[in-house]
Amino acid sequence: MPEAYLKGLEEIAAIDPESGPPFVEELKKISPDFAEYYVAFAFGQIHARQVFDPKIKELVAIASLISLGDGRSHLRLRIQGACRAGCSKEEIIEVVIQSVVYVGFTRALIALHFVKEVCEESGFFPPAPEGSAKH
Amino acid sequence: MPEAYLKGLEEIAAIDPESGPPFVEELKKISPDFAEYYVAFAFGQIHARQVFDPKIKELVAIASLISLGDGRSHLRLRIQGACRAGCSKEEIIEVVIQSVVYVGFTRALIALHFVKEVCEESGFFPPAPEGSAKH
Amino acid sequence: MPEAYLKGLEEIAAIDPESGPPFVEELKKISPDFAEYYVAFAFGQIHARQVFDPKIKELVAIASLISLGDGRSHLRLRIQGACRAGCSKEEIIEVVIQSVVYVGFTRALIALHFVKEVCEESGFFPPAPEGSAKH
Amino acid sequence: MPEAYLKGLEEIAAIDPESGPPFVEELKKISPDFAEYYVAFAFGQIHARQVFDPKIKELVAIASLISLGDGRSHLRLRIQGACRAGCSKEEIIEVVIQSVVYVGFTRALIALHFVKEVCEESGFFPPAPEGSAKH
Amino acid sequence: MPEAYLKGLEEIAAIDPESGPPFVEELKKISPDFAEYYVAFAFGQIHARQVFDPKIKELVAIASLISLGDGRSHLRLRIQGACRAGCSKEEIIEVVIQSVVYVGFTRALIALHFVKEVCEESGFFPPAPEGSAKH
Amino acid sequence: MPEAYLKGLEEIAAIDPESGPPFVEELKKISPDFAEYYVAFAFGQIHARQVFDPKIKELVAIASLISLGDGRSHLRLRIQGACRAGCSKEEIIEVVIQSVVYVGFTRALIALHFVKEVCEESGFFPPAPEGSAKH
Repeated sequence: MPEAYLKGLEEIAAIDPESGPPFVEELKKISPDFAEYYVAFAFGQIHARQVFDPKIKELVAIASLISLGDGRSHLRLRIQGACRAGCSKEEIIEVVIQSVVYVGFTRALIALHFVKEVCEESGFFPPAPEGSAKH
Repeated sequence: MPEAYLKGLEEIAAIDPESGPPFVEELKKISPDFAEYYVAFAFGQIHARQVFDPKIKELVAIASLISLGDGRSHLRLRIQGACRAGCSKEEIIEVVIQSVVYVGFTRALIALHFVKEVCEESGFFPPAPEGSAKH
Repeated sequence: MPEAYLKGLEEIAAIDPESGPPFVEELKKISPDFAEYYVAFAFGQIHARQVFDPKIKELVAIASLISLGDGRSHLRLRIQGACRAGCSKEEIIEVVIQSVVYVGFTRALIALHFVKEVCEESGFFPPAPEGSAKH
Repeated sequence: MPEAYLKGLEEIAAIDPESGPPFVEELKKISPDFAEYYVAFAFGQIHARQVFDPKIKELVAIASLISLGDGRSHLRLRIQGACRAGCSKEEIIEVVIQSVVYVGFTRALIALHFVKEVCEESGFFPPAPEGSAKH
Repeated sequence: MPEAYLKGLEEIAAIDPESGPPFVEELKKISPDFAEYYVAFAFGQIHARQVFDPKIKELVAIASLISLGDGRSHLRLRIQGACRAGCSKEEIIEVVIQSVVYVGFTRALIALHFVKEVCEESGFFPPAPEGSAKH
Repeated sequence: MPEAYLKGLEEIAAIDPESGPPFVEELKKISPDFAEYYVAFAFGQIHARQVFDPKIKELVAIASLISLGDGRSHLRLRIQGACRAGCSKEEIIEVVIQSVVYVGFTRALIALHFVKEVCEESGFFPPAPEGSAKH
């Protein structure tokens, strides 16, 4: 499946140019097969789909991971992805707030602290442009 | 908290005019306190927020519920909500497809069958307008 | 482990005299080993402990099962157990209400409907005596 | 990805010749993309791997689904798959018994009832050959 | 909703006078809206309810969080809350033991280690008064 | 239940001779009752069963824990147990790969990193003997 694999590598490099590609290299040392599935299927086939624009894709991923509850490093990664895709901090926090109804405060609080951490570390949250919260 | 409660009733009536209000009446008979929290907090305070437009709010809710895995009647309700908010069937299914990466095929398949059921029953999925998949 | 097994049978008969013992007989046909563990460990050793009084034991079990989210027949059983142990309907619903903070409305709503079902079917909820909600 | 898709169709037909292929046809009507991922990735790439022999592959899948807790139709399917792969009823129940330690009696009991149902319906559990429980 | 908010602040200060109020201040910096919902709804409306006495409220919360499995800092907080409410260490551990039946040893063991940690750090477990385990 | 307890101690010493017995001693200090249930039931009764050979027992346990998602120290322990039981690294990773279908990449990735950690620390993975992957 070389085409999907190459597409997946591109996606990963676009989402997280610094730590994405070394993460894949690391994964290949543990299990080349797993790495291939991850790159080619999760990124080359699923994440590369263009039905949603990148911002919505990331907001939906964050909702999914808050609710799953235990994919903490994965959640961190998607919050970073949301920042790069141009989501405002307000929008990311809105996913956390909406999720309170479905998953309660316990998991929402965990997510909120990840949002804060990613903000402090990365500093690449763009300032919310006027009216940006409305798509 | 009468204001939030009234706001919540409005939200519920807008999302699901037929079965929403009787559901609240039913809930009040089981537990008036629970009904109040549900209407005033979940709808009047959280769902009534306007940071996201209604379509994104519903897509995020669906992602959350697919991942939670066992809120089946709640998931059905939000799929109906997504239809009313103007989401195309393609967009709702896209949430299911994106979620495969985070939660696997087992929970995604359950969700997909709910999408199908809601479609067949309600028939109110608007035809996807040209280019509608891109917000 | 015959002693724990006999103790477990007693516990089961006390909690649910009508459907408990036939349930064990059914279980023994599927897997005698599983039935033994269930009776001797879950009931004879754990449920038979007397650190909590029976009401608190059942309220804690209900909280556990609401949060687990998918043990529906088990949840039903424990709600019945709570009724038999003398919990008022108000106390059982209070567990549901408190759990909203930890697990959200989705799982709480599922539980609330089980409370209603058990009430309607069994009719053995004692009327809440004055002040009974306070232990 | 036509090769993986064809491989996946073969796998599905081998595991469940009667209801597998119509299930795929049904899935294609709901979402051709989802159906393709399911057939080509889940079956053509993952399930087709030959590191484990078929019996172990099914026992591992059953353990996974018991623990997930809510993929009930998926769990039923894998129990059927285990039967076809030649697992004895004793081996399938052993997965349920081992899982009690990790996931508790609530989810184990749900699984046990599916084992019973599949047994009664299908009747294709081979009699456990002498010593078959030991691989 | 100023009244519920003030009530919530009071509850938080009563449960955890040292780290509760600064936690709220921290939360307000991340998201003032989330902080308001957390204080006013989770504490001012739900936790402030007086159907259960404080000890039972905390035991039920601990059961809920053990079963949820991943709200670790939340679980730690409620164990501390249980201590302050006058629960004995024996009672808190009893919730862990009862939960083994519903959620298995894996999640129970995680909880047990939190109980130990909180004991060692805080030292405020009151010695179990004679017969205190029985309410 | 002294017999099951002694059997359990033996099992624990065989699985993890270095850290197993001190772990039990530690547990006894926190809760002697919990320690007894853990040793006598989880190990003396369930883990001591001989329906599966030790390798399959561990592979099934790993599948169960990947899917549960949050029993991280328990998952680490079972990966170590699998190594001691003679499973090859390839077989342990195969459980992770198969689980992607049921639980998604998020939980599978967490598990994969534990496999890597255990490998690096312990160094006791036997080299996969020729053909060892096939049982």
